[in-house]
Amino acid sequence: VSIITLTTDFGLADGYVGTMKGVILGIDPTATIVDISHEIAPQDVRAAAYTLYTTYPYFPQGTIHLVVVDPGVGSERRAIALRTPQATFVAPDNGVLSYVVADERVEEIVHLNNSRYRLSPMSRTFHGRDIFAPAAAHLARGIRLAELGQTLTEIITFPLPQRWAKVSDRAPSPDGTIVGQIIHVDRFGNLITSIMSKDLVDHPLLREVIITTKGQSIRGIASNYAEGMPGKLLALIGSSDHLEIAVSGGSASQTLAAKVGDEVLLKVEGHEDKR
Amino acid sequence: VSIITLTTDFGLADGYVGTMKGVILGIDPTATIVDISHEIAPQDVRAAAYTLYTTYPYFPQGTIHLVVVDPGVGSERRAIALRTPQATFVAPDNGVLSYVVADERVEEIVHLNNSRYRLSPMSRTFHGRDIFAPAAAHLARGIRLAELGQTLTEIITFPLPQRWAKVSDRAPSPDGTIVGQIIHVDRFGNLITSIMSKDLVDHPLLREVIITTKGQSIRGIASNYAEGMPGKLLALIGSSDHLEIAVSGGSASQTLAAKVGDEVLLKVEGHEDKR
Amino acid sequence: VSIITLTTDFGLADGYVGTMKGVILGIDPTATIVDISHEIAPQDVRAAAYTLYTTYPYFPQGTIHLVVVDPGVGSERRAIALRTPQATFVAPDNGVLSYVVADERVEEIVHLNNSRYRLSPMSRTFHGRDIFAPAAAHLARGIRLAELGQTLTEIITFPLPQRWAKVSDRAPSPDGTIVGQIIHVDRFGNLITSIMSKDLVDHPLLREVIITTKGQSIRGIASNYAEGMPGKLLALIGSSDHLEIAVSGGSASQTLAAKVGDEVLLKVEGHEDKR
Repeated sequence: VSIITLTTDFGLADGYVGTMKGVILGIDPTATIVDISHEIAPQDVRAAAYTLYTTYPYFPQGTIHLVVVDPGVGSERRAIALRTPQATFVAPDNGVLSYVVADERVEEIVHLNNSRYRLSPMSRTFHGRDIFAPAAAHLARGIRLAELGQTLTEIITFPLPQRWAKVSDRAPSPDGTIVGQIIHVDRFGNLITSIMSKDLVDHPLLREVIITTKGQSIRGIASNYAEGMPGKLLALIGSSDHLEIAVSGGSASQTLAAKVGDEVLLKVEGHEDKR
Repeated sequence: VSIITLTTDFGLADGYVGTMKGVILGIDPTATIVDISHEIAPQDVRAAAYTLYTTYPYFPQGTIHLVVVDPGVGSERRAIALRTPQATFVAPDNGVLSYVVADERVEEIVHLNNSRYRLSPMSRTFHGRDIFAPAAAHLARGIRLAELGQTLTEIITFPLPQRWAKVSDRAPSPDGTIVGQIIHVDRFGNLITSIMSKDLVDHPLLREVIITTKGQSIRGIASNYAEGMPGKLLALIGSSDHLEIAVSGGSASQTLAAKVGDEVLLKVEGHEDKR
Repeated sequence: VSIITLTTDFGLADGYVGTMKGVILGIDPTATIVDISHEIAPQDVRAAAYTLYTTYPYFPQGTIHLVVVDPGVGSERRAIALRTPQATFVAPDNGVLSYVVADERVEEIVHLNNSRYRLSPMSRTFHGRDIFAPAAAHLARGIRLAELGQTLTEIITFPLPQRWAKVSDRAPSPDGTIVGQIIHVDRFGNLITSIMSKDLVDHPLLREVIITTKGQSIRGIASNYAEGMPGKLLALIGSSDHLEIAVSGGSASQTLAAKVGDEVLLKVEGHEDKR
């Protein structure tokens, strides 16, 4: 039995997601289909990439992850499938797999251009139904990746901040500062940053760090949201091990007018370079 | 293994949909349950009918489609099940199957009045739980349709526009005009019309058509949404093969104050009647 | 094959629910996972308790109900699992099982503190993923409850109104009045009360009761919502057998400024104490 997950910006009001599930079950009636989210902000490829990044490691090996956030549908963008030791990903080639290729060893990539594994006639506006769902379902049935189209050696990715740089580049600067970025804003307005708990292992005294973004500073890292004072900024390590900036009972995104890509600095108090 | 799809206006905040799934799994633990939508606008039978119409053809043969958009719950409206060569439909008799009976050969219809296949005690307000879910689950288990109640020969339908008229009635008028209607407004305000791509096969030059509705005209049919100018009207063939009217980055429904039932004309430019 | 239901306040926009499903399927790939609701109002333990109460009786015996509405995540509140003859419940120990323990015979309760059945490393903010989902999945696989942690003899509950009092306490007062409370406000603003249809069996003439709450009175109990006059208060027996107060086409909660815990009186007209 294969697991196919779905991540889209289709919403649940219309029948689009149901249609994709019908197509999948028509090809592989035994597939277990799991919704990750259908409420990705419309055409927000980065938000879809982040949601996938925080979710796929928790699925069993061999899971097929189908992502359809596809502003370029009907244009020349390619439809792709990509296999790692952990999972197979089926998606438009628009950067939505950027975290996957940064974190995993890529074993094989194909361009989903074998028309035998598409629905016919094919629409110009709903490739989720006509290309991506059939590809995922055929993979679930056991078709080899190479059957689905031509091998590719490169895909489109967007640049990722320091956390995904080589380890040697991730060391704090001489004055003890780690430079990160906001990589995601969740629906509560919490700012998820690229700085991870594992970047901080050499700093056991978490109360002694200062986090600065958008001209405001936070001293120390709290254990949980409840520790914050109402309306005040708060830093904590979130469930995906990333440093988050939140406002207790409010939206850090609104309070700071912060957005994806903004810089975040973490500095150890009183740090002096001993080199 | 049987597939049961669910289309309701119950929303997902309360436990109504979960309750129906519990009832189904209590009768047929092996059923595969697929959500089509639970966000049909409250009591909007036509929207439910349209959503079902665009979705059911993509499910495997033998799928059971359960629809509970039921403004008449507790009144004298009948609960029905209807079988076609493609699928079985379980729904209130309120017109929600109008597209199905227009497009498919109906093999059998029953009134779901055999109390043996209902929950007991039966509420007056939640027939989705007490009548429709049990009926779908018993069908999934293999009970014959005729066991569920008395045979019916007619059900309630609402009038459908020209697209479902006999082919001879669907030909363009002498001046080259096809008359259609708006049959659905989606959540983005796109206007889905009854005119289908297959009505246009004799008009290969799609750039040469003029579409008129609510006193405004659009020249030509675009390939996809991206071709539109921001804020301007746009016509295209949607994923269900119907002509749609959209506003790039906006709502055609609001821009035109258009609604279901409004007339849409498609005329070939420079057409002259040669008969 | 085991059924696991999910009731959370996580919403469906982020990947939290999908992550929990991945964890479950990684432990028990054959589990049937059913969503009850992920749109419980954030941290509203009472609403989650009510939703569970109206839903779990409709699932097959042996179903595992997983509830994660958990304002105390990261604090000292315990994670528990509780078995009744009907089902097993996995939840934080915060009162969310109050209706269950009032209505069912509790066979066994454990504190989910055996770290062997938790994810590692464990986050401070997402016990749904790290404690509750693994516990439910291990139970689905057949692990005995006692394996998951230490036996408990008591859990936290919130006080429930008269409907759950002993029968002798639930009898009408000498003047024929039944005293109840509002136990839930649904998303339409309908007020669900603790008074049940079975409290009324001795009052066959339902037209002859007067229901009073927040200084306003309603005469008689309607058969369904459609019987109400637009904008007027209406009483009826809802699908869970509880007396509800509604406003036809409006919100009773807003009209009456009513909330959970407010008193509701039901009096039989002309009743005189004959004792």
